[in-house]
Amino acid sequence: MTEEPRFDAAVYNSEGLLPAVIQQWDTGEVLMLAWMNKEALRRTLTEGRVTFWSRSRQEYWRKGDTSGHAQYVRSAALDCDNDTLLVKVDQVGVACHTGTRTCFDGRELDVVTMERSEG
Amino acid sequence: MTEEPRFDAAVYNSEGLLPAVIQQWDTGEVLMLAWMNKEALRRTLTEGRVTFWSRSRQEYWRKGDTSGHAQYVRSAALDCDNDTLLVKVDQVGVACHTGTRTCFDGRELDVVTMERSEG
Repeated sequence: MTEEPRFDAAVYNSEGLLPAVIQQWDTGEVLMLAWMNKEALRRTLTEGRVTFWSRSRQEYWRKGDTSGHAQYVRSAALDCDNDTLLVKVDQVGVACHTGTRTCFDGRELDVVTMERSEG
Repeated sequence: MTEEPRFDAAVYNSEGLLPAVIQQWDTGEVLMLAWMNKEALRRTLTEGRVTFWSRSRQEYWRKGDTSGHAQYVRSAALDCDNDTLLVKVDQVGVACHTGTRTCFDGRELDVVTMERSEG
């Protein structure tokens, strides 16, 4: 008896995609979020590098093939609803096509903070 | 002249939602991913606590109101495409309704890792 691959549990949206959060494994930086279909997920889990599905170009996009900024997979987990993936990676260079380390750098919004009163 | 609120730059999907990645501000743990519409984003940025839009219940869901497991906002940023939000929070208790600290705990997939040869 072979066990079903756990990734078969993944739940995709109406476009056949699930969001993948990409995190630098050692620093904890959230680098980016992009989308995977079932085949992109399979490649990511089996090839050692992260592959997305590009919604704008409608094609597979193995991170780093053009830019050199590859993402080497360290671990991956589905969430409790099986509809979000977290991939811990070793990021070569910068994750963002704009040249920043993460896609969130320098893009902070103003927030109102509140005193934590619980817990 | 007043500056437009930066959050007006946010880009929503066809359902009027954007994914929000929630990260513990000090440990870097990725706690969960959930969805916000424009009003949930406004509340999150102005009320000091994270509010989502529940797709299953079709209602606003201020994290912790039922469970006590509130998320106090420390910072928030949009990504380079303005269609993903990263919120750094101080999480009271556990983030996951199943009782685990994050929604990804204990849900790891098997991965093949590859030697990093670049960078």
